[in-house]
Amino acid sequence: MDILSYVAQEVQKETGVRLHKRNVERVIAAALVTRDFWKLVDLSDLPVPAASGIVKKLVSEGILFINEKEDILLTQKGYDIVAELGIEPFVDYTCQACEGRGYPFYADKELYRTFVELTKDRPKAIRDYDQGSVTPETTVSRVLFIDSRGDLRGKDIIVMGAEDDLTGLAIALTRKAHRVLIIDIDKRLIDFDNRIFKELGIDNAEAKVWDLRNPLGEDMLGQFNVFVTDPPETFAAFKAFIGRGIATLKEEGCAGYFGLTLRDSSLFRWREFQETLVGEYGVVITDIVQDFNHYMNWDYHSETKAAELAPVRRDPTDIWYRSSWYRVETLPGFKRWNEPISDDVFYLDEEGSTT
Amino acid sequence: MDILSYVAQEVQKETGVRLHKRNVERVIAAALVTRDFWKLVDLSDLPVPAASGIVKKLVSEGILFINEKEDILLTQKGYDIVAELGIEPFVDYTCQACEGRGYPFYADKELYRTFVELTKDRPKAIRDYDQGSVTPETTVSRVLFIDSRGDLRGKDIIVMGAEDDLTGLAIALTRKAHRVLIIDIDKRLIDFDNRIFKELGIDNAEAKVWDLRNPLGEDMLGQFNVFVTDPPETFAAFKAFIGRGIATLKEEGCAGYFGLTLRDSSLFRWREFQETLVGEYGVVITDIVQDFNHYMNWDYHSETKAAELAPVRRDPTDIWYRSSWYRVETLPGFKRWNEPISDDVFYLDEEGSTT
Repeated sequence: MDILSYVAQEVQKETGVRLHKRNVERVIAAALVTRDFWKLVDLSDLPVPAASGIVKKLVSEGILFINEKEDILLTQKGYDIVAELGIEPFVDYTCQACEGRGYPFYADKELYRTFVELTKDRPKAIRDYDQGSVTPETTVSRVLFIDSRGDLRGKDIIVMGAEDDLTGLAIALTRKAHRVLIIDIDKRLIDFDNRIFKELGIDNAEAKVWDLRNPLGEDMLGQFNVFVTDPPETFAAFKAFIGRGIATLKEEGCAGYFGLTLRDSSLFRWREFQETLVGEYGVVITDIVQDFNHYMNWDYHSETKAAELAPVRRDPTDIWYRSSWYRVETLPGFKRWNEPISDDVFYLDEEGSTT
Repeated sequence: MDILSYVAQEVQKETGVRLHKRNVERVIAAALVTRDFWKLVDLSDLPVPAASGIVKKLVSEGILFINEKEDILLTQKGYDIVAELGIEPFVDYTCQACEGRGYPFYADKELYRTFVELTKDRPKAIRDYDQGSVTPETTVSRVLFIDSRGDLRGKDIIVMGAEDDLTGLAIALTRKAHRVLIIDIDKRLIDFDNRIFKELGIDNAEAKVWDLRNPLGEDMLGQFNVFVTDPPETFAAFKAFIGRGIATLKEEGCAGYFGLTLRDSSLFRWREFQETLVGEYGVVITDIVQDFNHYMNWDYHSETKAAELAPVRRDPTDIWYRSSWYRVETLPGFKRWNEPISDDVFYLDEEGSTT
């Protein structure tokens, strides 16, 4: 067995995260362009437990080493393997204008400026609810994306369990939707939004406290044209956020938006999510834009399983946590999933670690 | 039944293309920002037979009319419906720098310039093989996208039945792949590529004539890290291009790239394609970038079913045919589909019309 497959197999045994040799190759390719562990997780597109496990195993195999500054470096043996296997460093031609999203936040400077001013005192991300806010550039780009797809103007929109990003607020600020309902478990965010709506006289938007583990009532089922959410990546949470999101939609031709990451979930799990979307829920996936959502670092990072598992103690210094932006559309016969959730692995499982 | 649902139902009966009311709403929303039929097809994201059918029906219902210059316009009744239903005009915040692709072609100006110079005498798109070339900006952006995903440097790459776009040539011009094999049914393109490879001394790239209706041989099965293709949107062609593409891949963690359009196929068909990819072939979809591929107009347009079905005789004056860019990745247990195709609806069915 070649060394990459061997490392993949050993780390899979240890962490329970499904892996193959290309995952190991990507970690080495990332190590050719960065010395920072968190940047390496970003580039290798792996769940943190997997990236940590691979780095530790490569260190114990003498392929990588970690110096006293906690830089991750290739050993001579590492460089020999790179040359032998023809592993090439990562390159990145991402558009500098739109940060690769296809829709630049500055296409509506007025909205961006208003949003940044109004949210300067936003509630801080807290660990209890797996929060981690996206950058204001991300939030505004989401709104422009939604608008460009014909899913904003005159539409009834629900933003579910993701208001730490204040996407519901940004949508309401455009004053272009017909109705905006924001539901989130965190009362701080709900109060924050409602206060702004009141101050600005935005009377078609409303925020209310809701725990998505509970089934939605008739006042929300089948009432909206568009839902927006950003679930934790366990299967239970996927159903609670996306399944229920689809359940809020009125009819065929309605749309759902959500982020899915590869930092807390693997491509194996993505395939299962995609089977559920297309096969079970009966929607079609119209967009997957990688690395659309950029998350700001959260204060509770040092308390997370990710920080504990990491081969270094050094904190992230830059954005390293990103997620893809999905859009799905309902087709005739789509299914409204709305079961109660009694799952205790709502936020965390073998692939997740940043809660 | 509301007027939008009624139009959708009638046009579905007539054309056989599956439709719902939101499709009709999109055509009206498009008519608020363009008078040109081909631009309207572009904005409404519908197969040409569907868009044509909807426009004709809306004309006969007195909602749209077509003037002597072949402009498509709303009648007073049309404007009344727009106001009553709250239909809003399309807006578009697409990034001007990268044309929404996330990877701007000018990130490698040298490659772009070389490609444009070398291909100034490229073979013209012909109808026999459903050809229609993408813009050089599209081709170069594809290469930069592939490179940014770690799928170019040191990799064995096959480009299948899509060389009217000269993507195989552009990949070879980077001289960064380990090996490039181009297969296409059109001998003109094969000769064109091989002549350039010979002139420039590119000895790791090769082009050969191949009809994808035939199963691939052992020399191609399981031999590549990456495949690139651009299929016609019938199910038979999807299997011949994508199924066989996956069959060329070596192992898990390999990647496939292809375009899928909504101009010759509906979201209903997309869902079937996605079920086939995820469920039957066992790959995961990692990217869907809408409107990534921009196709130049083809000389044989006036001979197509699309031109015949259109409610106007006026030719397209600008780019109107776009497709999404898909990336899939193999997971353990993925399936290599390689059956012979004896299907006579290879290029055309009820949703297709541009062949």
